[in-house]
Amino acid sequence: MASIDVMRDPTKTGKAIRAQIRDTIPKDLALETDFKEGTKYTITEHVIKLMDELCKDPRTLKVFTSLVKHLHAFARETGLTHDEWRLAIEMLTRAGKESTDFKNEFILLSDTLGLSVLLDELSHPRPDGATESCEEGPFFTVDAPELPSGTSLIKDGTLGEAMFFECTLKNLKGEPVKGAKLEVWQADGDGLYDVQYPDRVEANNRARIIATDDGIANFHGVMPTAYPIPSDGPVGDMLAATGRHPHRASHLHFHITAPGYDTLTTALYPDFSPFLGTDPVLSADKAEWANMGFKEGDVTTGRVHIWKYAFVLASNEEVAALKAKK
Amino acid sequence: MASIDVMRDPTKTGKAIRAQIRDTIPKDLALETDFKEGTKYTITEHVIKLMDELCKDPRTLKVFTSLVKHLHAFARETGLTHDEWRLAIEMLTRAGKESTDFKNEFILLSDTLGLSVLLDELSHPRPDGATESCEEGPFFTVDAPELPSGTSLIKDGTLGEAMFFECTLKNLKGEPVKGAKLEVWQADGDGLYDVQYPDRVEANNRARIIATDDGIANFHGVMPTAYPIPSDGPVGDMLAATGRHPHRASHLHFHITAPGYDTLTTALYPDFSPFLGTDPVLSADKAEWANMGFKEGDVTTGRVHIWKYAFVLASNEEVAALKAKK
Repeated sequence: MASIDVMRDPTKTGKAIRAQIRDTIPKDLALETDFKEGTKYTITEHVIKLMDELCKDPRTLKVFTSLVKHLHAFARETGLTHDEWRLAIEMLTRAGKESTDFKNEFILLSDTLGLSVLLDELSHPRPDGATESCEEGPFFTVDAPELPSGTSLIKDGTLGEAMFFECTLKNLKGEPVKGAKLEVWQADGDGLYDVQYPDRVEANNRARIIATDDGIANFHGVMPTAYPIPSDGPVGDMLAATGRHPHRASHLHFHITAPGYDTLTTALYPDFSPFLGTDPVLSADKAEWANMGFKEGDVTTGRVHIWKYAFVLASNEEVAALKAKK
Repeated sequence: MASIDVMRDPTKTGKAIRAQIRDTIPKDLALETDFKEGTKYTITEHVIKLMDELCKDPRTLKVFTSLVKHLHAFARETGLTHDEWRLAIEMLTRAGKESTDFKNEFILLSDTLGLSVLLDELSHPRPDGATESCEEGPFFTVDAPELPSGTSLIKDGTLGEAMFFECTLKNLKGEPVKGAKLEVWQADGDGLYDVQYPDRVEANNRARIIATDDGIANFHGVMPTAYPIPSDGPVGDMLAATGRHPHRASHLHFHITAPGYDTLTTALYPDFSPFLGTDPVLSADKAEWANMGFKEGDVTTGRVHIWKYAFVLASNEEVAALKAKK
């Protein structure tokens, strides 16, 4: 019976295992493995029990237990078929293969399923009166130049109608925020971000504007226009399959940071833009556009659109108090 | 005000949109967009309402509505953080990039989270008395040679202890199944499938055995040993993070097809194998190993292990009746 003893001891068996097991043989568990759909002990209980026995980190255990529970509930609720599963595997694999440094299909998927907006609402609750936050989107880069208030984001040859963005950065008491930086990134008048041009050599239509001590962070730019999110990959296929179009409402993106204040990631939408109701990334919450300073009457009859906005930042303490209340 | 009229009409605005919009401008909807966490109209209701308005295919709508509901419930239940989200995006992107024709990380993820077993249970319910099915796993290929009963799967140089697998293919009435084929694929004595050898030129340790009219489909092979699933990718990292090891219990894989019978995809596990309780793909259901014919007493004292098993197939009608009862 020597051969069976050999098989029982994984260190004495196949090369594939010997290559991985060094000093410690992972312990096996005498777990109940007689699971069956329609009984109290299904595969769902089995996976969760296995992780409960083995996972030492409470947070990891909580996340994966919840993931398994909801993934299985989704499969049961829909009666997911093998053909649908195979299609999902193919689309997820393509999503990874077609992702680049500038276009990540999984971020697009998170955006288009509303997960990005939800996570933002969960992690950045804002007090009443503070500017609403919204998600960062896929076009943020780290190479934006730092510029003083009043200068231009436009590097060269950018198409679009001229725009001057005038804003104030204040706190909930109405006082100017000291030491603030306003990072802006935006599409040009053709609806394209700099990273979407194959010949990009440096940042264009993006900057970190250093606010004045009066909390002013103005800049020259071009009016952003509506544009489609990348729809040549599996996320584009998903949008098409669900009858959705890929076109985002016009907007500007912002990060606003200041010592003592909760970082605000947000975007502003002109309230006359097409696609506000059907934006594919679902972030054009009315709170960010109904109250905008940008109205038809504010637009000059000449060459420059004037866009005004008053940002209201919440302090770290105010946000912490709000999170503690939950 | 001409400039604003231009911006309202997407066909007259940026190049990015003009390139995609031909005859039809996607219609916008006057949807309620004032969603807020903690109210009745959250981002979850907003996404579902948007799809409900736009998606024309009822099945697609059902799947994506359920997906959004459970994905959001998972994020709320765990209070998923941005750092965790970023880690997930990175792991999913890596999963796509590191997948090959022979190792798909998303299939491994489905396997290790118990989804593959669940889908199999949902789509292939088996009548009492029929052999339980289990999932296919990542090592199936389509190039297995067709061989008569009694021949060998081993091409050349395969390491391992010799094994003779003797089986019968019968229906629930105990009659031999006519015209059956038994496709088998297995790891060798080193715990490696042929596709894991970089110099693979043809199928090895896999075949489609043509059963005799008496429902016999025997073959010579090697005893499979326990082996790890690929753990050099993000799924391996996930297993490690949850305290799980990657080592599968020893097993043989089978597809069994016959005219008039529901195709059976299953696997058999020697009941003395290590890791039956902690198998990473969670499919070593006791139903597939406690009743196995392979016992210590069945093993010869010589060079050949004898492994006997009686498969019981359900007819198409029997499975259809079971599905209709649900």
